[in-house]
Amino acid sequence: MATRFVSERNIKFLLYEVFDVESFTKYEYYSEHNRKMFDMVLKAAIKLGQDLLFPIFEEMDRNQPELVNGQVKVHPSVKTIMQEFGEGGWISSRVPFDQDGEQLPSMVADICEFIFAAANYSAHAYPGLTFGASHLIESFGSTELYDTYVPRMRAGDWQGTMALTEPEAGSSLSDITTMAEPTDEGFYRIKGQKIFISAGDHDGVENVVHLMLAKIEGAPAGVKGISLFLVPKKRIDDNGNLVSNDVVASGVYHKLGYRGCPIVQLSIGDKNDCRGWLVGEPHNGLKYMFQMMNEARIGVGMGATAMATAAYYASLEYSKTRLQGRNLSRKDPTLPPVAIIEHADVKRMLLFQRAVIEGAQSLLMQCSKFVDFQKVLDGEAKEKYHLLLEILTPIAKSYPSEMGIQSVSQGLQCLGGSGYCDDYPLEQYYRDCRIHPIHEGTTGIQGMDLLGRKVIMKDGQALLLYINELHDTIAAAREFKMLEKFANELSESLTSLQEVTRHLVSIAGQDGPEAFLADATLYLEFFSIITIAWQWLLQGLAVQKALNNGAKKKDLNFYDGKMFTLRYFFAYELPKTLGLAKRLMDADPLTVEMQKEHFND
Amino acid sequence: MATRFVSERNIKFLLYEVFDVESFTKYEYYSEHNRKMFDMVLKAAIKLGQDLLFPIFEEMDRNQPELVNGQVKVHPSVKTIMQEFGEGGWISSRVPFDQDGEQLPSMVADICEFIFAAANYSAHAYPGLTFGASHLIESFGSTELYDTYVPRMRAGDWQGTMALTEPEAGSSLSDITTMAEPTDEGFYRIKGQKIFISAGDHDGVENVVHLMLAKIEGAPAGVKGISLFLVPKKRIDDNGNLVSNDVVASGVYHKLGYRGCPIVQLSIGDKNDCRGWLVGEPHNGLKYMFQMMNEARIGVGMGATAMATAAYYASLEYSKTRLQGRNLSRKDPTLPPVAIIEHADVKRMLLFQRAVIEGAQSLLMQCSKFVDFQKVLDGEAKEKYHLLLEILTPIAKSYPSEMGIQSVSQGLQCLGGSGYCDDYPLEQYYRDCRIHPIHEGTTGIQGMDLLGRKVIMKDGQALLLYINELHDTIAAAREFKMLEKFANELSESLTSLQEVTRHLVSIAGQDGPEAFLADATLYLEFFSIITIAWQWLLQGLAVQKALNNGAKKKDLNFYDGKMFTLRYFFAYELPKTLGLAKRLMDADPLTVEMQKEHFND
Repeated sequence: MATRFVSERNIKFLLYEVFDVESFTKYEYYSEHNRKMFDMVLKAAIKLGQDLLFPIFEEMDRNQPELVNGQVKVHPSVKTIMQEFGEGGWISSRVPFDQDGEQLPSMVADICEFIFAAANYSAHAYPGLTFGASHLIESFGSTELYDTYVPRMRAGDWQGTMALTEPEAGSSLSDITTMAEPTDEGFYRIKGQKIFISAGDHDGVENVVHLMLAKIEGAPAGVKGISLFLVPKKRIDDNGNLVSNDVVASGVYHKLGYRGCPIVQLSIGDKNDCRGWLVGEPHNGLKYMFQMMNEARIGVGMGATAMATAAYYASLEYSKTRLQGRNLSRKDPTLPPVAIIEHADVKRMLLFQRAVIEGAQSLLMQCSKFVDFQKVLDGEAKEKYHLLLEILTPIAKSYPSEMGIQSVSQGLQCLGGSGYCDDYPLEQYYRDCRIHPIHEGTTGIQGMDLLGRKVIMKDGQALLLYINELHDTIAAAREFKMLEKFANELSESLTSLQEVTRHLVSIAGQDGPEAFLADATLYLEFFSIITIAWQWLLQGLAVQKALNNGAKKKDLNFYDGKMFTLRYFFAYELPKTLGLAKRLMDADPLTVEMQKEHFND
Repeated sequence: MATRFVSERNIKFLLYEVFDVESFTKYEYYSEHNRKMFDMVLKAAIKLGQDLLFPIFEEMDRNQPELVNGQVKVHPSVKTIMQEFGEGGWISSRVPFDQDGEQLPSMVADICEFIFAAANYSAHAYPGLTFGASHLIESFGSTELYDTYVPRMRAGDWQGTMALTEPEAGSSLSDITTMAEPTDEGFYRIKGQKIFISAGDHDGVENVVHLMLAKIEGAPAGVKGISLFLVPKKRIDDNGNLVSNDVVASGVYHKLGYRGCPIVQLSIGDKNDCRGWLVGEPHNGLKYMFQMMNEARIGVGMGATAMATAAYYASLEYSKTRLQGRNLSRKDPTLPPVAIIEHADVKRMLLFQRAVIEGAQSLLMQCSKFVDFQKVLDGEAKEKYHLLLEILTPIAKSYPSEMGIQSVSQGLQCLGGSGYCDDYPLEQYYRDCRIHPIHEGTTGIQGMDLLGRKVIMKDGQALLLYINELHDTIAAAREFKMLEKFANELSESLTSLQEVTRHLVSIAGQDGPEAFLADATLYLEFFSIITIAWQWLLQGLAVQKALNNGAKKKDLNFYDGKMFTLRYFFAYELPKTLGLAKRLMDADPLTVEMQKEHFND
């Protein structure tokens, strides 16, 4: 078993040197905090990961959840985890002081989540989902709903979920058929089926609180008729006791990976006795849910990065200790074999992983910083960071998801045959990480969100702000001799991005939405690579500043390693944009023209 | 469960229209055959796949092999499979008539193997390995070894294996430590450990015949001291009875996938009573083994393509029947949802799979054709096809292995959440196919084989022959208006390949082997994409010829589909060479310069 799942040094580099979280303590909202406290929080998170989550990473996989007599049974540690996360304040780390939360900057709270996800993704999902659901109630629910549910959720007693998907409505939520019938008793009667609900039922908590999409009878067709309901597994009766609310776990899926967390099928209101409470206004459900969804999407990116990070350290450890072969320039078979990390091709595989995971982690921290800016700024300045976060969300979700798979796969490859066997954790990471391009909106959906919505929203204002951010970084990097080359390359890529975007938008006008969005997934990939190059240049800036300020000797290998990884990204990854740009500038709409009959035979 | 795992139409297109297997019947060696017979063989292979192999595809995965009291227990069907394959002549389909074989052209025999692998890769491995091992004995073993072992192997009574890997010697075979002590009784006493031996022990046969690498005491260091031995699990005593030969299954690996076939750890000669018989001359073992290894490498490519093909048809079936969402140009939610195959992004994912699998299958058939040419030609002409096969082998092994994973992953993605659950076969294909970039020489090893050996062998003669083949195809394609554009694009790519190759070879001279081979894996990818583009152009030629000759109406959708897939490959896949060429022409040797210390922290 690998012994390490994150790099504390890299976390601190991003938090303090690249994104300067300390600078936020000058704002009123975060003024109670300081670096010493952040360090303590980090240390506690790593310890919790090491002591509680990481040791059962394999065990939770090998003993997957099962449905027994209508109750989903999970690993007994889940109960402990929910309790510890509740008591330790981890579910309420982002919650304001006046609600008994820790009011931590998102940058710090998110990096803690990253640590937990790296230690054990399945385990971290339980409290993570609970926070998201409680935040939705806090944001849009009534005081009564808040008082009844949120404290129990934050304490880790009750699980929270997001219940969207149905058998016939996955990517297309407009087709949900779960119905809500109004009553005059303050609640609605809910009836329907939900599938693929993460942590949708389990015996590690005493209750499960579903934030559920449903349609009120007579609602308009499509997404404009969707409302949000709070539907608990057990409701509180007049005597204050928990009683069944007619929400039944009817199945648990057996999955490729991510087996520590049950994905549940729910039958709701089979006995016509399921009560749901409207959250916010009728027919606005999807808008509300998108708050949780957007958080969840960034959470998926975070989890994907974390998982790939843990896989990287496992493959690094193996590569440092496994002896095999000799250097190509000294192939004498009587010489002892070398550690495989000596081989250029293995270093390439390790560098690929680092380039992906540390680039993605930087982007996620960048997103967290934009969230923090929104907490402390107002008006136009706040709106700016809101728009930047909007345009970055599909990238922050999909790049780590897609490239995380490639990264873990290269990690597995470093181990050769051992990577394919369950004596090492790589095969589990490989199974686990395949979920990410699927849940919380597939990569295809993210591509359409980026090109079909975010890029063109508000006359392209979000894109313009994004371009400005990159220009600022490029200008700053040009001040450093070691970064000039990379700054110029990013600048060229940015020009290409603008050119491609203009071309695609012109297609939208001429040929309609099908042709416009046919290659949205490729556009997403193209946009993402440039975004991660930007993040690497930002990291390069921090390194150069540190070196100019006389870095400590013990940090030199770390900084040199960063510069090698930056060089790697620009030499091996950024050139992938050339092929993507060629395709995106090509006007052959073959995927639109091809018909299903052409797939016969 | 999907109902289809190959396309008979596509198999016949490749066999008859693209590679014209019938033309080989004019040669003496294949003169007994004709198309009608080939069709019967294909039909029989598909039926065997459908009736015997495909139905237990999941079952063999869910009931993986276990070691029980020193005996590996496998699915009971394995015994039936070995018997049926023996009796049906499938293990000896390539064997000459005078050895009671079928003497089928490789093109036909290999496509049958493809069909079996698509139906159930694990199941097909047992007879496949047995053929390879028996072929090795036939090629290099004594008459006595042949008579004792080969007939029983071809009958499906005895399993054959290739036993190379050891705990400390995987990619680097020069470090094997299994020893062979000569005796004056005609055999050697063998002692050592082997790991990762496919079908290395099981209860579906009465004996297992290992073709094993070992070093004779006092042999030179490195690969020049490796000899090849036949080491049976049970040897024949003086009374003609099978008795233990001191080869013990000491472990069976639990793997990510490919679970229907056991990968075994062997302890050899623990009681000092293991007898091995030398195959061929001493110290020439690796050379002999490379015959089986090269066949096995192409076999891996074939298996990877087959698996991805089966996954493609499963995802196609789902995409045709799953209803979700509406066309982007008609989003009215009151309209009924469409099958997801109507969405351009889904068509793109299906086209990607087709472009990969049908391109790879074409390359594999091309390799088979080169094998057939070697059977019927002599002298320089024979040597030409030998060299072409040499240079194509690393590509035929690695492109399907690496891209097969991407292809299956896109297949899984078409199914969304269902693709991640074991109610559908995609998750199993996804696990199964990850073995291919590892076994029979990792992708890294293939890259070094291509650039460090094949490209420069005989003063670049193999490369020259390859370039000529592509030139011929390009010239032929330019005669067709519909292919001109693609012919020109392939021509440009070929120029780029020559430029990159010259650049890399110049590095070899200036900076030594480390820098030369540092990006061999990327060079392999670059070379492979161009090779598959060539194969698509060849397929395009066959389509255009068929259309010019007045194709049947029922074939038009098939031919149009082929042309769409060709367009896809040139529009989406070939441009990937741009980024690869940029990197390969870049002189920054960062993976050589970076040291292991830079991976600290």
